[in-house]
Amino acid sequence: MNERIQEILSWYHGENPGVLTNLTRLLNHGELAGTGKLVIYPVDQGFEHGPARSFAPNPLAYDPHFHFEFPIESGCNAYAAPLGFLEAGAADFAGQIPLILKLNNHDVLQDEKDPLGAQTATVKDALRLGCVGIGYTIYPGTAERRVQYEQLRELIREAKAAGLAVVVWSYPRGSSLSKEGETALDVTAYAAHIAAELGAHIVKVKLPSAHLEQTEAKKVYEKYEIPRETLADRVRHVVQSTFNGRRIVIFSGGAKRDDDQAILDEARAIRDGGGSGSIIGRNIFQRDKATALRLLDGMMKIYKGETK
Amino acid sequence: MNERIQEILSWYHGENPGVLTNLTRLLNHGELAGTGKLVIYPVDQGFEHGPARSFAPNPLAYDPHFHFEFPIESGCNAYAAPLGFLEAGAADFAGQIPLILKLNNHDVLQDEKDPLGAQTATVKDALRLGCVGIGYTIYPGTAERRVQYEQLRELIREAKAAGLAVVVWSYPRGSSLSKEGETALDVTAYAAHIAAELGAHIVKVKLPSAHLEQTEAKKVYEKYEIPRETLADRVRHVVQSTFNGRRIVIFSGGAKRDDDQAILDEARAIRDGGGSGSIIGRNIFQRDKATALRLLDGMMKIYKGETK
Amino acid sequence: MNERIQEILSWYHGENPGVLTNLTRLLNHGELAGTGKLVIYPVDQGFEHGPARSFAPNPLAYDPHFHFEFPIESGCNAYAAPLGFLEAGAADFAGQIPLILKLNNHDVLQDEKDPLGAQTATVKDALRLGCVGIGYTIYPGTAERRVQYEQLRELIREAKAAGLAVVVWSYPRGSSLSKEGETALDVTAYAAHIAAELGAHIVKVKLPSAHLEQTEAKKVYEKYEIPRETLADRVRHVVQSTFNGRRIVIFSGGAKRDDDQAILDEARAIRDGGGSGSIIGRNIFQRDKATALRLLDGMMKIYKGETK
Amino acid sequence: MNERIQEILSWYHGENPGVLTNLTRLLNHGELAGTGKLVIYPVDQGFEHGPARSFAPNPLAYDPHFHFEFPIESGCNAYAAPLGFLEAGAADFAGQIPLILKLNNHDVLQDEKDPLGAQTATVKDALRLGCVGIGYTIYPGTAERRVQYEQLRELIREAKAAGLAVVVWSYPRGSSLSKEGETALDVTAYAAHIAAELGAHIVKVKLPSAHLEQTEAKKVYEKYEIPRETLADRVRHVVQSTFNGRRIVIFSGGAKRDDDQAILDEARAIRDGGGSGSIIGRNIFQRDKATALRLLDGMMKIYKGETK
Amino acid sequence: MNERIQEILSWYHGENPGVLTNLTRLLNHGELAGTGKLVIYPVDQGFEHGPARSFAPNPLAYDPHFHFEFPIESGCNAYAAPLGFLEAGAADFAGQIPLILKLNNHDVLQDEKDPLGAQTATVKDALRLGCVGIGYTIYPGTAERRVQYEQLRELIREAKAAGLAVVVWSYPRGSSLSKEGETALDVTAYAAHIAAELGAHIVKVKLPSAHLEQTEAKKVYEKYEIPRETLADRVRHVVQSTFNGRRIVIFSGGAKRDDDQAILDEARAIRDGGGSGSIIGRNIFQRDKATALRLLDGMMKIYKGETK
Repeated sequence: MNERIQEILSWYHGENPGVLTNLTRLLNHGELAGTGKLVIYPVDQGFEHGPARSFAPNPLAYDPHFHFEFPIESGCNAYAAPLGFLEAGAADFAGQIPLILKLNNHDVLQDEKDPLGAQTATVKDALRLGCVGIGYTIYPGTAERRVQYEQLRELIREAKAAGLAVVVWSYPRGSSLSKEGETALDVTAYAAHIAAELGAHIVKVKLPSAHLEQTEAKKVYEKYEIPRETLADRVRHVVQSTFNGRRIVIFSGGAKRDDDQAILDEARAIRDGGGSGSIIGRNIFQRDKATALRLLDGMMKIYKGETK
Repeated sequence: MNERIQEILSWYHGENPGVLTNLTRLLNHGELAGTGKLVIYPVDQGFEHGPARSFAPNPLAYDPHFHFEFPIESGCNAYAAPLGFLEAGAADFAGQIPLILKLNNHDVLQDEKDPLGAQTATVKDALRLGCVGIGYTIYPGTAERRVQYEQLRELIREAKAAGLAVVVWSYPRGSSLSKEGETALDVTAYAAHIAAELGAHIVKVKLPSAHLEQTEAKKVYEKYEIPRETLADRVRHVVQSTFNGRRIVIFSGGAKRDDDQAILDEARAIRDGGGSGSIIGRNIFQRDKATALRLLDGMMKIYKGETK
Repeated sequence: MNERIQEILSWYHGENPGVLTNLTRLLNHGELAGTGKLVIYPVDQGFEHGPARSFAPNPLAYDPHFHFEFPIESGCNAYAAPLGFLEAGAADFAGQIPLILKLNNHDVLQDEKDPLGAQTATVKDALRLGCVGIGYTIYPGTAERRVQYEQLRELIREAKAAGLAVVVWSYPRGSSLSKEGETALDVTAYAAHIAAELGAHIVKVKLPSAHLEQTEAKKVYEKYEIPRETLADRVRHVVQSTFNGRRIVIFSGGAKRDDDQAILDEARAIRDGGGSGSIIGRNIFQRDKATALRLLDGMMKIYKGETK
Repeated sequence: MNERIQEILSWYHGENPGVLTNLTRLLNHGELAGTGKLVIYPVDQGFEHGPARSFAPNPLAYDPHFHFEFPIESGCNAYAAPLGFLEAGAADFAGQIPLILKLNNHDVLQDEKDPLGAQTATVKDALRLGCVGIGYTIYPGTAERRVQYEQLRELIREAKAAGLAVVVWSYPRGSSLSKEGETALDVTAYAAHIAAELGAHIVKVKLPSAHLEQTEAKKVYEKYEIPRETLADRVRHVVQSTFNGRRIVIFSGGAKRDDDQAILDEARAIRDGGGSGSIIGRNIFQRDKATALRLLDGMMKIYKGETK
Repeated sequence: MNERIQEILSWYHGENPGVLTNLTRLLNHGELAGTGKLVIYPVDQGFEHGPARSFAPNPLAYDPHFHFEFPIESGCNAYAAPLGFLEAGAADFAGQIPLILKLNNHDVLQDEKDPLGAQTATVKDALRLGCVGIGYTIYPGTAERRVQYEQLRELIREAKAAGLAVVVWSYPRGSSLSKEGETALDVTAYAAHIAAELGAHIVKVKLPSAHLEQTEAKKVYEKYEIPRETLADRVRHVVQSTFNGRRIVIFSGGAKRDDDQAILDEARAIRDGGGSGSIIGRNIFQRDKATALRLLDGMMKIYKGETK
């Protein structure tokens, strides 16, 4: 194993060999194997936003097999999805791509200021499907986050005992936050820190804006002049807030955009700010396959340092 | 086993042999055995609407034995009912018809905008009664759907481990949906997708209207010109939204109507749109037996392709 | 065993021998042994209404031993009470009368539109006290009935596995029902059906009035001209609604009345309508003993068919 | 064992030898050993009202050891307290005084109309601390009493299986009761009856006033002219309401009063009304030790019948 | 073992040898080993207030390893933190400093009058990380404190059975308390007493002000002239309220202040009032290292009695 991977594993020194093995499987798979960088391919939008909103732009994406074939072909590090999508292909594509089972999900058929989501699968499901890890989304800032934190606590305990890696999506939400505040720098850094404190091996947050949401935090950012002008600055602050770089932090770009260059620029900022990579779904599967492969290739070149 | 059944079983490749066995029992029983199509006979209306509203039109239907005899005689694939109705005949008719135990039910003695229902039986009950599967109703869109999704998650886990098939009734409801929205195309497709993501083997939804309920979804349907004019179009979209045809999707027709022709037309649309069949209760047991048998025979001919 | 009892046991064909044994113990005890009719003596009013309201009319009734002695002496089929009352005599009168442990109870010290009650004893308690069965009260129509249905589901599962009979008191209540509606014919028949669907062996409801409460149901009763003029008509409809007579249905008369003749007339209506008997408490223990014994004797003669 | 104790044990005929042994330990300890009367010393006021309000009048009482020494020296039947106070001395004074572990407690740092309290210790704690029994407080009349009744049900089940005696403090509270109603005769008798129905071996209530709170109950008390003029009358009615004297019923006097004579008069009324004794805390430990010992000695003489 | 430590252990006479061993490890580690005094270093502010507010003043503190190195180097008795921070170094620094795992945490991303927090780790986690004890924060006075008390009850039971020490942070909060009331003397003493009654070995409260919050308590403090003028007086009252000195009580100073002298004066007051020491986080890690070490050294000299 190369030094970079050994260094990353050293952050997780206290974990059992099973966890270390599955983290290695993630880090040593695909185009970015051995670089310490990750591009993870997630497809939970069918559940989270509805099938047509997710897959109509590229009807091949209605098919769960498509979502196995694509990350295998493009060399992503892993594919993450809810129970049904994984069940629909895990046997057919067994052993071809590391799988992450998303254990909770939320639909948008009810208007909610403080969403909660539901745990829709278990650690035992992840094991029977041959996954390397579990995924779970928390909404720091919601009124009922206690329910999520405690559910996640038990899942983490069970996953680690079973040697699985734990990826936590940390998305600030809730009635006390403004819309802008959900991606504010202070709030994003806080959300990443919470995920790490809860025991996540890999933390996934949205790319933060320069906005500062909370009054008390704002004073501190301004007093200590924490840099936040460039996206790379902000990535750097989030990585620092997540145990000073001792945890893998990856970033998502959000809704589909047509501008490939903007997406590549984000990858550069993630790389330059010390982030560990991207989690990218809609911007891939809503493109036609050729374009998507080209975009992914561009991102991977950036993470491999082959492109400036 | 014929090729069509083998193809259907291939969709459930990752399941254990027990599940595959029970799916085969469902698919290879009755008039439609081996066609890959299903007509399931459900009787939960006594609980859901009250006994007189359900059975007064045909008082033979007050008797739980009637509901075993009827699907046996008419060659349905399975009979689905709550605990009490199955207990009242499962020993008397043991082995004569595949049984599905409805694990949750809801009554209408309380006015509710966000109904929840109660889990009224268990997987262990299904096993002791000799069932091939369990049924569960979710109400996507209700405020408390989390409770249902998590209850279903545990039941699915337990059922699959015990080799049982899982049928999920997915009925959008709740305070954020208009009455029309409950059967809107976007909402129905979303509900079917959620059921599949939760791990259902067989998804059961209502036949959708051409109405679109959710603003964000509507934009997508219009932008991508998803066909929704004919009922067959809409069935096709729902089937596509349910893992692109890799799950069995069946449709219910709703309240009793006198017009046999309309019901047969619906069966044609289900067939032509690629649906796997019908679940039909009130339109059968509220008719006199001869008429009901004739109607069922007509539907089965359509599903077998003997009628255009 | 005589034919009538064998016929009744045939309704419960699927149950294990333990359940069949305890149903037989109930049916073959006391004055009505072997008739297929039951008079059950319940004393939960101390908990439900308070001790003075229950026992001041006959202070002997404050004593839990009185409530064992009375049904033994008068030849009732069983005695049903909450934990404390049974514990206070179950050893002293062991084996002398079939006992039913009421597993939930509700007091009236809090004004509530949607009462819920509490589970105050367990199936294990019923076993250690030598009971033949458990009793549980549901309030169909209350906002929180889900809690009751699910609690009952677990108790039924455990009781049946332990070979105990299950008696469900089904009393419609809740904020969506009018006071008159709680004993309306449609609502009573619905409540009885629900209890049977939940798995009750014996269903206990109040004698219904001719009132119809629910709009949709009313249309059906009127359209199909379901007879409801006489009390016997209404009993017959409730029995029909409870699996068409394949379940034991017994009726309570409610608050104490001085008119013995009215109570005997009710017993006649229950008998003539095909009901399986009575559950009678306050109208017995609030009378002086001689009068109460005479009244019970009159009822039993009616059920035995010795009186017209 | 003397006849009186054997008679009391006969009330609990159905209990296992472990329970009978611990009831005997309670009844045969201290000054009142063998009389069938009990004086129990409880110290939960630190938790229930705060330390200074409880112990500032006699600062020795801040020390948990004081509360072991005092009932040992004065010959009380038992000492009852929450987990912490017992843990702080149970090893030091092992075997010197029967202990009762209070399993739930409530603080007054939040204004509440329907208090609930929390279960702060377990039956297993009672066993490891060498206790003869458990104590639990219910608030009949509160909106959430269901939670308490069900928690108590499980604790009683577990305690009885472990051979422990069960003491239930029954204090009517809640938004439907007036302040005066909390100690009304009808409500107190009802609360005592509920505690006994839930399975308590020993019921503890406050001394009732002559007030009648509930309309329906009031009619009955007046119609049947239930005596309630003297305190002894009211004690007698409560004892009658608690299984007609087949359960041990003890009474508390409430807040500290300076008038020793009034407290002794209450003991006389408890004795003359057939009560089994007193539970007395603040009126003891808030006095200086010499006065407190003299008062206790006076009470015990009354219970032993040495004083009129 | 010296006499002072033996005396302290005698307070916990009833505990098992595992608990006594871990209490000894705490008391016999670092600069204050053997003195009976403790300085514990806690770092949960990242979770409780956010990373930037906590660590921006001293960016080294973003790194979880810093928080192991610092208390090792400065000779604190123990280091306390949430799951993630301990996992990030427990293997690297195994055996070098006693660890306390904070089992619950609360973030400030939602405005709440009655905060609750979430249990974010378990006793099993504490064991696998080699901890000597667990920490848990209660908020006496909040509406939902029942949830916390019962969660803590189970954790204490499990921790003690596993031989772990239990530290309870007791911070009065909630909608019935004024802001000033949260550190009022009466409320602080009450909160400390509750923590001890719940079974804490070590109680941690904030230094109280002279304010009195609750009307009934105020009367008692004034009537009995409980001294509260000096900080030492108030510490003495809190220690007295916590089982009269039979429990270890430590105090926190709260937010960072620049004035070292004030912090040292507080340590003197804690010592002179009979407190067992300090828990000090932000006032240490938000200083530069040299200053922080000097301040800690000053505090320890005070606790050792080397400074007046």
